[in-house]
Amino acid sequence: MEAMKSIIQKYQHQRISLVEAGVTRHRSIFNGLKALAEDQPDSDLSKPEVVIIHDAVRPFVEEDVLLKVVTAAKEHGAAGAIRPLVSTVISPSADGCLEHSLERARHRASEMPQAFLFDVIYEAYQQCSDYDLEFGTECLQLALKYGHIKAKLVEGSPDLWKVTYKRDLYAAESIIKERISQHVCIVMDTKEDENHVGHHLEEILKDELNVITSRLPCHAGRDLEQIMSEQCYTYVCVNVMTSDIEETRKLVNMLEESNLSILYPVVVISVYFLDYKSVPFDQKMENLMQIREYAKEVKKRNILLCGLLIHYPQVSKIWSRIYILYTTDLRVGTRFV
Amino acid sequence: MEAMKSIIQKYQHQRISLVEAGVTRHRSIFNGLKALAEDQPDSDLSKPEVVIIHDAVRPFVEEDVLLKVVTAAKEHGAAGAIRPLVSTVISPSADGCLEHSLERARHRASEMPQAFLFDVIYEAYQQCSDYDLEFGTECLQLALKYGHIKAKLVEGSPDLWKVTYKRDLYAAESIIKERISQHVCIVMDTKEDENHVGHHLEEILKDELNVITSRLPCHAGRDLEQIMSEQCYTYVCVNVMTSDIEETRKLVNMLEESNLSILYPVVVISVYFLDYKSVPFDQKMENLMQIREYAKEVKKRNILLCGLLIHYPQVSKIWSRIYILYTTDLRVGTRFV
Repeated sequence: MEAMKSIIQKYQHQRISLVEAGVTRHRSIFNGLKALAEDQPDSDLSKPEVVIIHDAVRPFVEEDVLLKVVTAAKEHGAAGAIRPLVSTVISPSADGCLEHSLERARHRASEMPQAFLFDVIYEAYQQCSDYDLEFGTECLQLALKYGHIKAKLVEGSPDLWKVTYKRDLYAAESIIKERISQHVCIVMDTKEDENHVGHHLEEILKDELNVITSRLPCHAGRDLEQIMSEQCYTYVCVNVMTSDIEETRKLVNMLEESNLSILYPVVVISVYFLDYKSVPFDQKMENLMQIREYAKEVKKRNILLCGLLIHYPQVSKIWSRIYILYTTDLRVGTRFV
Repeated sequence: MEAMKSIIQKYQHQRISLVEAGVTRHRSIFNGLKALAEDQPDSDLSKPEVVIIHDAVRPFVEEDVLLKVVTAAKEHGAAGAIRPLVSTVISPSADGCLEHSLERARHRASEMPQAFLFDVIYEAYQQCSDYDLEFGTECLQLALKYGHIKAKLVEGSPDLWKVTYKRDLYAAESIIKERISQHVCIVMDTKEDENHVGHHLEEILKDELNVITSRLPCHAGRDLEQIMSEQCYTYVCVNVMTSDIEETRKLVNMLEESNLSILYPVVVISVYFLDYKSVPFDQKMENLMQIREYAKEVKKRNILLCGLLIHYPQVSKIWSRIYILYTTDLRVGTRFV
């Protein structure tokens, strides 16, 4: 309970009530339903018309499928998401041999979410045997057995799968990375200059990513706030001929205030184009080394800051190299999430 | 057929015969069996006692499970790998409602590999109806139906799953990365010096990885050949106070000759510790910039070379920083595979 409370607090959820779990899946669900029922004296929640049951191990549930199961539950009393079977299902005999196999096309995998008229599922659970509560796994089956409700089956997306094995964690991580890496915001000093290195970067990236541009924080203000509110998780801050990290700090401050990094890490790649012949190398390094310390500090707040120093004698001669560096580092950056 | 031939050539497989596929799974398997049968005039293969059927979309099959199904097939006539069901299986009615649900604990998912006495499965396919060949999916079922053989069911590992959805590609990629990132070889100039930066790196990494050390190629010779033959896919080449990339070239040449990179990419991280105060910066950069061009060249041969330049005034003062850089870059390197 303490762990859950701290998660709710951390992610600033407002409308969650915690209920203690039971020792089996069905007992936990029953506890949840009791908390919503009118006949329970100590509950301050009101009884809903429809209730949705979902598994936390299926984290990629879309609003669309929630709407579908709720709508179908209102009409049929119960509804659940299904998926085609990937493997044939067989029934083994007691001695571990094949008894018979099921025709794959005539069966489906029952997934989550499922939705029920509250009274249907609550009454089903009240009639449940101890055997059901101990060994049962399927809520739709309870609605059928005790409520005589034939649940409507709704086709779900592949992303509803159950994160079960270690490989599923890899898959889940990759899905999240892909989702939050679709957008990149290039933050640069002057929006007007068409030859600006930031615009060249935009040209290179726009075939693969959704690229937004903005001015540096000192000039941008609400532009950047807007971009952050639209859930862009990757920022490239372009600094030409300066080793001042002030603009980077401002950008990071705005990100902190936006609370964007609460749910997913935000990547900030701050690129410095410097001509090492015109200013002593040591002096610039001194300034830029501060980024490393600053990066450690902001990492605690889920902002992954990466400084990239590009030396150049004459910018025009090394455009192509810069592009390669840029894109390579963006990928590292986003992969690093 | 051309694509498959080029794959066989590329990976230097010796004992593969290609057979044209059919329009359904069962027709393809039947074609494969025909190529092994004695009664087919144009086949130059000999009839085996036992045949294994496997899906290419289950790439992580271990020798152990192959042995188990073959042994069981010799005794029972047929055998196949199974796994517990992750979701409940249900049977829908014609109007898309729940007809009934199966008790999850009493059913299993039928996976691959499967093994059969050749005569059992070949005769089963010869008796198959067109309906079976068009719509069937389960070979064990054919052995049961036409050969009256109750297949022995063998518990398989979770890694036998079927790579089906996009997320499964992510999972497969991660499993490969994890497998080939377990070992790292640190290649350094003097094995005797206990204070060598390479040994410090070894200390840092050995809790997480299986670390092997070797001398630089000019002194190592057969040591390195041995390490390569034992399938180590990650190499950190440590160069102290030199900007000469000759040792890196030698290492990469040895890797090319070992053919290690045919199956999986090999990562080489070549680290240069230089004191930028003692030698002009430009001159060293000149040498080291060659690594970038060289990396492009060897990438075509599946060797991912990454140069890492570490400036330092006094090595002893920045040990800890170097460690952080090292480990970070190793991760980027291996992730980048």
